[in-house]
Amino acid sequence: MNIIDIINKTKNKNELSENEINWLVKSYTEGEIPDYQMSAWLMAVRLNGFTERETLFLTLAMRDSGDILDLNSIDGVTVDKHSTGGVGDKTSLVIAPVVASCGAYVPKMSGRGLGHTGGTIDKLESISGYRTELAFSEFIDIVGRTGFSIISQSGNLCPADKKIYSLRNATGTTDSLPLICASIMSKKLALNADCILLDVKYGSGAFMKTPEEARKLADLMQNIGEKSGKKCRAVVTDMNNPLGNNIGNALEIKEVIEILQGKCRNKLYELCMELSANMLSLAGMGSYEKCRETAENAISSGKALETFRETVKLHGGDSRICDDVSLLPTARYSYEVRAVHDMKIESIDSQEIGMVSLILGAGRFAQNDSIDMTAGIVMNCTAGDSVSVDDTIMTLYSTKISDFSEASFRAVNALKFYRI
Amino acid sequence: MNIIDIINKTKNKNELSENEINWLVKSYTEGEIPDYQMSAWLMAVRLNGFTERETLFLTLAMRDSGDILDLNSIDGVTVDKHSTGGVGDKTSLVIAPVVASCGAYVPKMSGRGLGHTGGTIDKLESISGYRTELAFSEFIDIVGRTGFSIISQSGNLCPADKKIYSLRNATGTTDSLPLICASIMSKKLALNADCILLDVKYGSGAFMKTPEEARKLADLMQNIGEKSGKKCRAVVTDMNNPLGNNIGNALEIKEVIEILQGKCRNKLYELCMELSANMLSLAGMGSYEKCRETAENAISSGKALETFRETVKLHGGDSRICDDVSLLPTARYSYEVRAVHDMKIESIDSQEIGMVSLILGAGRFAQNDSIDMTAGIVMNCTAGDSVSVDDTIMTLYSTKISDFSEASFRAVNALKFYRI
Repeated sequence: MNIIDIINKTKNKNELSENEINWLVKSYTEGEIPDYQMSAWLMAVRLNGFTERETLFLTLAMRDSGDILDLNSIDGVTVDKHSTGGVGDKTSLVIAPVVASCGAYVPKMSGRGLGHTGGTIDKLESISGYRTELAFSEFIDIVGRTGFSIISQSGNLCPADKKIYSLRNATGTTDSLPLICASIMSKKLALNADCILLDVKYGSGAFMKTPEEARKLADLMQNIGEKSGKKCRAVVTDMNNPLGNNIGNALEIKEVIEILQGKCRNKLYELCMELSANMLSLAGMGSYEKCRETAENAISSGKALETFRETVKLHGGDSRICDDVSLLPTARYSYEVRAVHDMKIESIDSQEIGMVSLILGAGRFAQNDSIDMTAGIVMNCTAGDSVSVDDTIMTLYSTKISDFSEASFRAVNALKFYRI
Repeated sequence: MNIIDIINKTKNKNELSENEINWLVKSYTEGEIPDYQMSAWLMAVRLNGFTERETLFLTLAMRDSGDILDLNSIDGVTVDKHSTGGVGDKTSLVIAPVVASCGAYVPKMSGRGLGHTGGTIDKLESISGYRTELAFSEFIDIVGRTGFSIISQSGNLCPADKKIYSLRNATGTTDSLPLICASIMSKKLALNADCILLDVKYGSGAFMKTPEEARKLADLMQNIGEKSGKKCRAVVTDMNNPLGNNIGNALEIKEVIEILQGKCRNKLYELCMELSANMLSLAGMGSYEKCRETAENAISSGKALETFRETVKLHGGDSRICDDVSLLPTARYSYEVRAVHDMKIESIDSQEIGMVSLILGAGRFAQNDSIDMTAGIVMNCTAGDSVSVDDTIMTLYSTKISDFSEASFRAVNALKFYRI
């Protein structure tokens, strides 16, 4: 087998065999195939596509490039969730304690933010003392005790994906359905939960611009998951608005706690209930409708908040924030963006709102940048709202007062509105 | 400007600007763009194509990556020729002295052989003493005195092409019309003759399998040449048979001399006359028909042989071979492949005949392999011929007797025939 033959096959739209795909992934991961040959092959996949059969073999080969977690010591059904990402997406932090408090187990590994999107791990680290890097044994122990734990991706999971992903990033080959699918699903399969819920976003803040495109990716991932022996479901959700009112690390933890406290019933709450109900029904806890009720009860009874508190405590975090969000770090400066006339907000460019948050200090331009945990945005409006002159549309937070000029200018421009 | 934007443009079939192409070629040649990004871009060109406008800018940028020869000191019209290569292709060695003896000037740089195709420079080096590496001044001096000189590609001509070509070779991106065109034409334009004749081959021994495909490449190259300010013509010729009777370095020089002596009027002779007439008419020496007559007279009068003799002498070569081909090196062993029954030869796989010649020692498997100047094949038949039982179909030559087993087996299999 040799790489030139494999490149030529994909280039000429001939299907690769399982053996060829295994050899390709193994040889590239081990450094035997140089980047310049792999990137030519990736571009051929991007432009010619890849069959579902090939995508399955690619996913499995990437899964098998590293460790596969052994979750057998958890005495119950394990459920994992993946969102294709978006601005202000803190659903995992609400869903995990909700689902865990209803009897399923949620062992989760998450990533850090880059560019306009935030990362669950960064958000958790805004909780004083919270340790995101645990040994596997401690991670499993916490999942067993409270029902969930969220840690930073660690160990030797999917080294093939790490290498291929960074090459795709540098070669214009990120926007390929089969490559996106293999990247996501190989990691999910290596984490190895019994059930996987996939939340594929569409809209201005997401990679997929329409529900139809998102559905295609959702179906592909669900098929690959099922053919790999998992219970798998994929839902398609709207990302035309930022998810929730708050964007930025500590600000998002604050919103998570307010939802878990039952004090906040916004669109994010609705989405979390929808996803939780799907996870619970996938885990065999009854119909979607019944699971939806169970999930809502977990909030109103305070059980989910209790589960969150216990997990934060076991991770070394200051769990007093669960009763008093003012203990979270807060920004030195804030800036209110106000309406200059009566207007109706037509739409919000989520990606641009993510960029504003980044400029304020909440995110990273490059991989090793440090983060201002207190920076971010609180949105007082959502698409469809009408606001009156002088109303506060959003509040910007930062530790550096100089940041507000560019940020406020871009924040206003991220709104599409008309005067009323 | 950045490489990711450029990759994405080509990936999405958006035309690149002249500035973008210049920047890309310059940055890659100078090592600022890594191979893995360039190869992704090359694959995007291979699969999405490139407009003629883009191909022109690419060609010019590659030409301008190194030196452009100054041929002004040659007092007359300069004519260059390029063949897309083939097995047994020694046309340059006949054409250059013919055209030169008719009053045009042919400054030529040629390459060495690799794989199943031979190289003009290797063939010339089978002439005892012939120097293929001359200083530019000596090269121009010989062209001025005899009308032609052929030397090894040297100096800093088209470094961009060298780098891109070797990357294409390793990434399955050789078979792209615009990339082939830019590679050939950038070198021709850097050599900088007034007129360029392009000989695009089709058939079993060529990259282009049909006359239609060859015509496409021919038209593209001619357009690019003309838009770059050259007189340019492209002809399409048959490579379904090896070119001429002899394949192998000294064996091919022997055939060249026999043609120049007027002793051999085979298909190769016909092709050389066709190409010479095209070059002469392109150089303004009259109609094709008139130039064809001029070219034939150059052979029958002995003028072309005289020109060849003078050039060989000025290159330090043993010019006595022009009168006595037995002074060329000859092989220690020969092996006659004979017909085992009466048969008609339908076709000959030229590429496979090239491989047989390679196995016999006439070519290189890898770039730095040494060559057996005496090895090769003399074909006694061509497609369409009928042969009788025990007739010699071809004779194999080598210095190692052990080579004949595999070579003779493959030589017979390269013929497609039926019993009569």
